[in-house]
Amino acid sequence: MGVDQAGMTSADVAKLVGGSLIGAGDVDVHSVASLADATAHDVSFLGNEKYRPQVLTSAAGVVLLPRDFDAPPPSGRAWILCDDPSSSFSCAVMQFAPPMPTYAPGKHPSAVVAADADVHASAHVGPCAVIESGAAIGENSVIGAGVFVGENARLGGDCFIHPNVTIREWCVLGERVIVHSGTTIGSDGFGFIPGASGHEKVPQVGIVQIDDDVEVGAQVAIDRARFGRTWIQRGVKIDNLVQIAHNVVIGEHCFIVAQVGVSGSSNVGRGAILAGQVGVAGHLEIGPGAVIMGQSGVTRDVPAGATLFGTPAISRKEFAREKMLLHQCGDLRQSVKALKRELAEIRAAMDLASET
Amino acid sequence: MGVDQAGMTSADVAKLVGGSLIGAGDVDVHSVASLADATAHDVSFLGNEKYRPQVLTSAAGVVLLPRDFDAPPPSGRAWILCDDPSSSFSCAVMQFAPPMPTYAPGKHPSAVVAADADVHASAHVGPCAVIESGAAIGENSVIGAGVFVGENARLGGDCFIHPNVTIREWCVLGERVIVHSGTTIGSDGFGFIPGASGHEKVPQVGIVQIDDDVEVGAQVAIDRARFGRTWIQRGVKIDNLVQIAHNVVIGEHCFIVAQVGVSGSSNVGRGAILAGQVGVAGHLEIGPGAVIMGQSGVTRDVPAGATLFGTPAISRKEFAREKMLLHQCGDLRQSVKALKRELAEIRAAMDLASET
Amino acid sequence: MGVDQAGMTSADVAKLVGGSLIGAGDVDVHSVASLADATAHDVSFLGNEKYRPQVLTSAAGVVLLPRDFDAPPPSGRAWILCDDPSSSFSCAVMQFAPPMPTYAPGKHPSAVVAADADVHASAHVGPCAVIESGAAIGENSVIGAGVFVGENARLGGDCFIHPNVTIREWCVLGERVIVHSGTTIGSDGFGFIPGASGHEKVPQVGIVQIDDDVEVGAQVAIDRARFGRTWIQRGVKIDNLVQIAHNVVIGEHCFIVAQVGVSGSSNVGRGAILAGQVGVAGHLEIGPGAVIMGQSGVTRDVPAGATLFGTPAISRKEFAREKMLLHQCGDLRQSVKALKRELAEIRAAMDLASET
Repeated sequence: MGVDQAGMTSADVAKLVGGSLIGAGDVDVHSVASLADATAHDVSFLGNEKYRPQVLTSAAGVVLLPRDFDAPPPSGRAWILCDDPSSSFSCAVMQFAPPMPTYAPGKHPSAVVAADADVHASAHVGPCAVIESGAAIGENSVIGAGVFVGENARLGGDCFIHPNVTIREWCVLGERVIVHSGTTIGSDGFGFIPGASGHEKVPQVGIVQIDDDVEVGAQVAIDRARFGRTWIQRGVKIDNLVQIAHNVVIGEHCFIVAQVGVSGSSNVGRGAILAGQVGVAGHLEIGPGAVIMGQSGVTRDVPAGATLFGTPAISRKEFAREKMLLHQCGDLRQSVKALKRELAEIRAAMDLASET
Repeated sequence: MGVDQAGMTSADVAKLVGGSLIGAGDVDVHSVASLADATAHDVSFLGNEKYRPQVLTSAAGVVLLPRDFDAPPPSGRAWILCDDPSSSFSCAVMQFAPPMPTYAPGKHPSAVVAADADVHASAHVGPCAVIESGAAIGENSVIGAGVFVGENARLGGDCFIHPNVTIREWCVLGERVIVHSGTTIGSDGFGFIPGASGHEKVPQVGIVQIDDDVEVGAQVAIDRARFGRTWIQRGVKIDNLVQIAHNVVIGEHCFIVAQVGVSGSSNVGRGAILAGQVGVAGHLEIGPGAVIMGQSGVTRDVPAGATLFGTPAISRKEFAREKMLLHQCGDLRQSVKALKRELAEIRAAMDLASET
Repeated sequence: MGVDQAGMTSADVAKLVGGSLIGAGDVDVHSVASLADATAHDVSFLGNEKYRPQVLTSAAGVVLLPRDFDAPPPSGRAWILCDDPSSSFSCAVMQFAPPMPTYAPGKHPSAVVAADADVHASAHVGPCAVIESGAAIGENSVIGAGVFVGENARLGGDCFIHPNVTIREWCVLGERVIVHSGTTIGSDGFGFIPGASGHEKVPQVGIVQIDDDVEVGAQVAIDRARFGRTWIQRGVKIDNLVQIAHNVVIGEHCFIVAQVGVSGSSNVGRGAILAGQVGVAGHLEIGPGAVIMGQSGVTRDVPAGATLFGTPAISRKEFAREKMLLHQCGDLRQSVKALKRELAEIRAAMDLASET
């Protein structure tokens, strides 16, 4: 994997991550790996309780562990106890990471930048990128190879637009927005006046507005508004292959997991989580902090803080109750059979009694 | 959002959209907004009955309303009664829309167009677009930046291919076809002869044919046929992130909503609607005018005009019946308990009777 | 469709595919078509039992059939009996296919290839492709127009990377890997430390490793690992619009059908099949040879060879049992009603008896 960087000792790692070393301080490590894959020269970590049994059996030379981990390391290995092993592990990961590309200020000669585009001198514009008339690119932003920035689109500072992204005309991105490759921002909303001999296109002349600190995954489609804006608020994190329709509002700090689709004019409240492959119908309100579980289909407004599951989505509790009801059907069937038998017996007994 | 255009009065707007003005004729407006977002200088509209309560409480200076709306406007505001408020609102939207990009005839110097490609003189070929040998582009068509048009592909007149689309070799698009960014037309169908030590690729040498007046969303994948054609017929509207497999036929004027997947060799009949995230298995016939509700999974042929829901998809009515049956299980359980109790009593009474 | 190639006789076709000719040997054919679409000059085939009734009614001049097909061809038509009609038909398809593009060695002048990139002299680099510093492209590989290959990415020989694909830094592809248009390989995994006032990005500095003979569809997103690798093993076939999250391992020869999503750190065992629109939660083990049916949502580990269906996914057998239980609810309800009636009668009879 990647390149091995200069090695460190287990004691060095403990110092780096601010953890408490238990066991050997001279374990030589030069890369990172999961508990399952690690060798004697790897730093690993316990980030998910599911993997706790792997700690002792792993070959990892060094393991970052929660402070309550009490078994001592086998000979020649080291534990480093941390407040947050996953976060500390990220420090180790960065230490051993291969060098990442750097992006010098300036426009690549093959980039096509309109004369009246306002590209900050510190921004990087990659090969074959296209920046149209009236567009603006802020300080230190990186426009990757093959990216298209349409007329009058405006990007703030410290944005990172990965290769082959399309940002259509008039769209607005704030500061520190990251957009991964292949994504389209500002495509026309899906609006038509239906007719048996042809559907008439409803003009889509609004924009997409993406606020500060948003990250948008790869292969995402965010449609421009019919009018006004489709709005991705501050701090939202959108995973890959997500569909955001026209005039949707995604509230601050929401997580929108991969392959979710949100239909036109729906509002997703602050801090909500839409898990993978969730679908949301149009013109709905999803309350702040709601959690929609994977593959659910939301067809009604959702109260704040609710946890929903299923299609049509119902409360998680109700979903569990329905599942239980279904499983009780088998028992019920047995009970009804028994009742029938018993009734037949009683009837027989009564007939007998009446005959006597 | 965008730029404010020159203002109009409410009387001007009424004239523009051919509606009947009620209330103030001198309300000064210079943009459009939804009822919830509008200010005193916005034109808004009632396009969905759900929002009717917002009309009176909205701050919108001017509201386009259906002719049967009978409450008068508050002082200083204006109603405009129309036959079709949504359609009239589109006129107002266009009036206040920011200027859209224009596309001059000719090839950008950075475009790479094969010497023997037949590009109409009136067509626009954007920066870094690539048009391969033998390809043809019709009158007034726009080929966006970074678009790839493969060998011998043919596009009709008045097409609009947005930036970063890929159209592979030999595919054929009719007149007035719109394709949004990031989409791929003509990728290989997913065909293999399975084998435990490796799957053999089945050649995919057919094409994609897209007829007149089709619109294809962003991030869509339409696979070329194994042989013959994958065929999107006249007037079909395809939303974002849709998967159309090899040799599928989508009949005239269908709506294929976001994230739908249609498997190989299935036929979708004229005017059918596949709602968001629907999946259709392979080699099926979906009858004309059928409606498949969101997230449903179609595993059998569908009769014309049917409305289906669920996975596996069943008729909407049957789906409702199953849901009802499930909910009755709870009551049934109570009934069975009561019956057991009653039987026990009867048995006790009988035992008593026999003892006496 | 496409161009008609030089014609052949039915006898020529039989020789070409190594089959046994029944009927006319001089049927002149010059293209291929499905049974439904074929004309007298087409070769067709029976590849799916569903279409068997169409063989006799089809107009196809020549039909490739399984050896057990016993009805003779109508006058003027020909059967060709084969061991594997579908595979033999692929030979005929290739014979009549329009000429496919060829890719000469060398870099297009508009491509931007870093001075220190190691591109084999036999490789083809298309127009506006970008190959960054330290990247390597193996013998005879084709890099399509507009493709981005990031720093230090390494591709083996005989790869085919279709137009507008993005391969990020440090990713590694083996030999004979095919990647279809619009796809992104190596985007950042979706990892954040959640916080009410903002989520902190977890660095994603691992890679994607794709082994020999893998095919990846269009509009796919394969995220780079948080550390180590996201790993697509030898011979895997991935369809369009699939999401593979960070640190996932897809075992050898799996089929991952369109619009599937696999969440972080899950392992899919050798030869497993994930059908269309399946979702797999994170940190799961799917056993070798498992089959997950379309649209299912996997929330627990899956044993080897199991067939699962539903959300949450259960065994196909259990799914069928649940469906049956539900349908029995209606009968059960009738039974309970009947029991109630009967009990009431008995009680009435007993009251009568006690009165007498």
